[in-house]
Amino acid sequence: MPSAPSSSPHRESGSPRVSHVDVAIIGAGPAGCMAADVLSRYTDRGLSVRVFDKRSAKLDNGQADGINSRTLEIFESLGFVESIDKEGSRMSEINFWNPDPETGRLIRTGKIPDTIPGLSRFQQTILHQGRVEAHLLEDAAKHSKGAIVPERSMLPESLDVDESLVSDLDAYPITLAVRHLSDDESNPNGYAGDAAGTRSGLFRSSLLSAEEEEALYHQNGAHAERVEVVKAKYLVGCDGAHSWTRRQLGIKMVGDQTTFVWGVLDMIPLTNFPDIRMRCAVHSANAGSIMVIPQERDLVRLYIQLPIQVRPGERADKSQFTPDFILETARKVLHPYTLETEHIEWYTGYHINQRLTNSFGVHNRVFLAGDACHTHSPKAGQGMNTSMQDTWNLCWKLGAVATGIAKHELLQTYSDERQVVAQQLIDFDKKFSKLFSGKPSAADDLDDGVDLKEFKDVFVAGNRFGAGMSINYADSSVVGKDGSKGGIQSKQHLAANLPVGERFYSAQVVNQASATADQLTTRIPFTGAFRLLVFPGDVTKPAAMDRLIKLADYLDGPDSVVSEYTPANLPRWSVVDPITIHCAPRTAVELYDFPQPSIFYPHNYKRIFADEPSYHRGDGKAYETYGISKEEGAIVVVRPDQYTGLVVGLEDTDLLDEYFARILRPAKDGGFPASKVDKVSPPDWSKVAHQEINKTLAVAELGAS
Amino acid sequence: MPSAPSSSPHRESGSPRVSHVDVAIIGAGPAGCMAADVLSRYTDRGLSVRVFDKRSAKLDNGQADGINSRTLEIFESLGFVESIDKEGSRMSEINFWNPDPETGRLIRTGKIPDTIPGLSRFQQTILHQGRVEAHLLEDAAKHSKGAIVPERSMLPESLDVDESLVSDLDAYPITLAVRHLSDDESNPNGYAGDAAGTRSGLFRSSLLSAEEEEALYHQNGAHAERVEVVKAKYLVGCDGAHSWTRRQLGIKMVGDQTTFVWGVLDMIPLTNFPDIRMRCAVHSANAGSIMVIPQERDLVRLYIQLPIQVRPGERADKSQFTPDFILETARKVLHPYTLETEHIEWYTGYHINQRLTNSFGVHNRVFLAGDACHTHSPKAGQGMNTSMQDTWNLCWKLGAVATGIAKHELLQTYSDERQVVAQQLIDFDKKFSKLFSGKPSAADDLDDGVDLKEFKDVFVAGNRFGAGMSINYADSSVVGKDGSKGGIQSKQHLAANLPVGERFYSAQVVNQASATADQLTTRIPFTGAFRLLVFPGDVTKPAAMDRLIKLADYLDGPDSVVSEYTPANLPRWSVVDPITIHCAPRTAVELYDFPQPSIFYPHNYKRIFADEPSYHRGDGKAYETYGISKEEGAIVVVRPDQYTGLVVGLEDTDLLDEYFARILRPAKDGGFPASKVDKVSPPDWSKVAHQEINKTLAVAELGAS
Repeated sequence: MPSAPSSSPHRESGSPRVSHVDVAIIGAGPAGCMAADVLSRYTDRGLSVRVFDKRSAKLDNGQADGINSRTLEIFESLGFVESIDKEGSRMSEINFWNPDPETGRLIRTGKIPDTIPGLSRFQQTILHQGRVEAHLLEDAAKHSKGAIVPERSMLPESLDVDESLVSDLDAYPITLAVRHLSDDESNPNGYAGDAAGTRSGLFRSSLLSAEEEEALYHQNGAHAERVEVVKAKYLVGCDGAHSWTRRQLGIKMVGDQTTFVWGVLDMIPLTNFPDIRMRCAVHSANAGSIMVIPQERDLVRLYIQLPIQVRPGERADKSQFTPDFILETARKVLHPYTLETEHIEWYTGYHINQRLTNSFGVHNRVFLAGDACHTHSPKAGQGMNTSMQDTWNLCWKLGAVATGIAKHELLQTYSDERQVVAQQLIDFDKKFSKLFSGKPSAADDLDDGVDLKEFKDVFVAGNRFGAGMSINYADSSVVGKDGSKGGIQSKQHLAANLPVGERFYSAQVVNQASATADQLTTRIPFTGAFRLLVFPGDVTKPAAMDRLIKLADYLDGPDSVVSEYTPANLPRWSVVDPITIHCAPRTAVELYDFPQPSIFYPHNYKRIFADEPSYHRGDGKAYETYGISKEEGAIVVVRPDQYTGLVVGLEDTDLLDEYFARILRPAKDGGFPASKVDKVSPPDWSKVAHQEINKTLAVAELGAS
Repeated sequence: MPSAPSSSPHRESGSPRVSHVDVAIIGAGPAGCMAADVLSRYTDRGLSVRVFDKRSAKLDNGQADGINSRTLEIFESLGFVESIDKEGSRMSEINFWNPDPETGRLIRTGKIPDTIPGLSRFQQTILHQGRVEAHLLEDAAKHSKGAIVPERSMLPESLDVDESLVSDLDAYPITLAVRHLSDDESNPNGYAGDAAGTRSGLFRSSLLSAEEEEALYHQNGAHAERVEVVKAKYLVGCDGAHSWTRRQLGIKMVGDQTTFVWGVLDMIPLTNFPDIRMRCAVHSANAGSIMVIPQERDLVRLYIQLPIQVRPGERADKSQFTPDFILETARKVLHPYTLETEHIEWYTGYHINQRLTNSFGVHNRVFLAGDACHTHSPKAGQGMNTSMQDTWNLCWKLGAVATGIAKHELLQTYSDERQVVAQQLIDFDKKFSKLFSGKPSAADDLDDGVDLKEFKDVFVAGNRFGAGMSINYADSSVVGKDGSKGGIQSKQHLAANLPVGERFYSAQVVNQASATADQLTTRIPFTGAFRLLVFPGDVTKPAAMDRLIKLADYLDGPDSVVSEYTPANLPRWSVVDPITIHCAPRTAVELYDFPQPSIFYPHNYKRIFADEPSYHRGDGKAYETYGISKEEGAIVVVRPDQYTGLVVGLEDTDLLDEYFARILRPAKDGGFPASKVDKVSPPDWSKVAHQEINKTLAVAELGAS
């Protein structure tokens, strides 16, 4: 493989600068920022990444604000969930307000917990999109040592994919031209707030067509001398509902536009409505409905159904959507409660489009993610979550393929997995938003209106879906369920409560070396590695310890999934990372009872855990939680994105071989850059241990700074 | 009161610049940084603060590293405990290693939990002093909007206190001259690491005399033109064991120097000692003892008893303390376990001085804190904790007095409270370090050596002390126990498990407005306010609600402790802040059932809580935990530094009046600056609520940035 060509040093005057990059990302919204953060973890292996955004600055307010439990688990995996949880407004209860059947007066008719208790360690929280993007970008900059920062005021102008090159993994088949905008161009009218500090989101809402939005950035004509031509191996289009990338690829959005029109206000309310700090669904008798979302910084968001309807294919007149009009409508819904405010931070309006693309990319070289491939109502709080989870799914695969670790075919599972999720979301949203937009039915008139009992039932059922916990990826090369689609057949009964294809969840365990109680997911953060979670059972029993030693002999051997797929220039746990959780009493065994180096890696003290009560934090009961027999044990393969990929027994090393053979490239064939790569050789412990510990040290220092 | 004179604008050439400040802090170690952070919370009331440190940069490694549970609680109160807990190395178990009585071989003879389970929500952790200082300074800069940053390379040169001015609260009785050092002067030999990156701590250890240390900063003679004369109202000397401030005041350290000499190594060990990630006390048969402290970033600290003794009053020869010599000694103690390293980050040596000053300051204008007034062995991990807790105690008092909220006499309680603590620490340390430095006794020779059973017992007993939980401040104006020293007599039985004088601890409660489970201490962070925790009982019972309404009537009246002491230019909860925790089922009452404004402050949703099970985090059982009767209820007054100051009944408003009359200045007499101050008047709710909410908003935004 030739090394990447550098930027043309002596370009002719007038001809655009040409540069090369492994991955180009268009759009620095939630999907693009997540892509940047995940890919930043591969920059120390040489991966180059650039992020382009046409806007001149990140958002300070408005737009999406809901963060569901699954996304919080992902933030834990990325290492900054504490900051998000602390900054956000945690939601605990949903209250339903409806007209009293007798008097018609607004009353509280029911309440349910927000996030089903026990579903996740993290409860849904609210934090506006700009802060979420900021956290992701800070993290990306940290892990890339400053190499990945979004390049703003950069408008994509042309995209070409050379199909003759798409199967050559060393080639740059994508040619992207980007234009650097002037300040005026990248700050179209509508960006700034009004005199009262209120900002409008109308200019980027569904009230605009793609053409109208694009025109905003072409107010001053082209400046050819400011164009750069970027040759890329891969491109990720995260450029929103009006996706420019999607239109270049000729991919269409298919679906419906509803007739319902909504307004949104983010404000500091002065009200005597008692549930203003709860998530509420309020249906008035005749004035429409409201959803209340308590936000961070004492703000509250109201989604307000407006007395406007549009016909499908038409757009509402933007001039109707003034803060006063939206607020006045909200007052009518909340009557007899008062609603005043002296500060509206942001407002917008939208009609609901429920649409999906029939493809999530082309040639496994150009991908679409987030709103670029699915749009729906914002009220279920799924937009930002699904968008980030799209690139969370895509980018570990992209990172592994682009750095030579995984096979190119792995990328096909991105569309396969996420298109199903997007379809489920649209199906859910159709049901959910219709119920929300409808008028409450009188008891004797069920056909015409919304049955409020059904509304609550959908809310309860939607809770698990909304938390992001309903995703169950189908059988594939990376999901070994029943082998129906060429995957491996798992022995699911060995870990009965960890369904293959679903997200792996945490249990508390106790560190063998330090006696410290830790959540297992905290100890297996995202590194790009697959985890082999080895549950050998009670290792004080000879049968269990023998089984573990046999597994260790295999792992240490020259043909194991560790030895076969780990390039010599990476630490031994970079690709397939064994972590052991035994269930003997911690003090009945010693660190040095465990086989070295695969199980107890010398001088590395965070790879062996006991399932036992802790001194300070109760008992995690990991084996019981996961449905793993203490007699039989299990190996659970957790994908880099924290989904369970395979469940087998400790003796099933042949199944491990088969599973990874479908996904990974033998180190001698791959690696990045090719010249440095060789299959991992038996290490000189004294040196390797130190070298790798120093690497750990450097990363920890980075984290601390 | 005249406004503060500004810096002389037209000083004559050659004469030093003269400036004025409310509080000057000398030394940016843990005590000085804590002082800066606490005082930063008063800068929005106009308080000016400067911090001087003679060194050119903060420490990157070494020095103190233990953070006890109480300090973590303080960090929670300051708002950044999550960052510390995440960055540090949490300690869970202490292991004891001793010679086998039969073979003499080193064996593990026992283990105890580190931090007694149930003592605190936070378990002891390890993070080196430089990082702790950095967190405090970042927080101080944030809260002071950048006004408080340490001025480094600033050496104090002279100190004068004009006794004729000390009782005039508007005067600047302190004259401090500070000299700006050149780079060479503020980086004496010994600061930089050697070629291998190992840094020495010898130059600031107890192996140097005060004169020797001071000489380090006078290598290039004086530069008179770089001297600044600072006129201050108050001065806090946080300048360490060799305190320059202490020497200027003529205050002496009294106590002993032991003959034991210790070395310290912070390093990445390569060892087969199985408990290297535990805190361990290792006594060898003949080679001395070691304490093992697992640090952050895979580092481990070893405290190693050296085969050197000095006579009292003499100092050991510094040239003996090489990393190799200390490591070689450690190897002998740990034998037969191996001990190698390729990276030593830091090392030092010391002999133990156990000394205390007879005074913590003069005229309640100049104060000493931290090592400047007490020194002892570092092994119990108390130095950094006690130092920070000194200024944590001092600076809310100083902030309140200097901004006109509290009476000057309050400052006397600093010495009264902390001198007792320092004496207890030295008494504990004498026992603890002697046992550590002694040789294990043979079974038949108890008189001569250390009884290892006693050693473990002292460790267990010391655990509570070491966690910072043994502190119980005596009766005073701010601690109303039995009234023996002119304080108020508490009705302790009303909150039987919240001893007056001890630190207030957290229980989980559920927010009335949002149903969100929160730790009570998280909801009462440090703001400088006293908290009135009002426990009215079950407010669905008329008697309880009547009692609460009566209390509200008092609080809203013109003569209550809220109305009397809150200047009109501050939000109503800035001085005495009522927080209500009822024990009715949350859904059996509504927000608007509570009396306004003192109990339910309009549009402010974080002041009323229910003691009930939460959806997601179990049941806090606050009434039961605190020993408060659901029938009788109680008011618990929590000091700004989170110590319980008074326990009375809901009807005891006369006792509240008496308690605060001893501490605070009526708003009409005080305030800062005086010109703006008036007693708080009945607010116009519509305006005040908004104005104060906006203030909350601004602070939250600051926190989010």
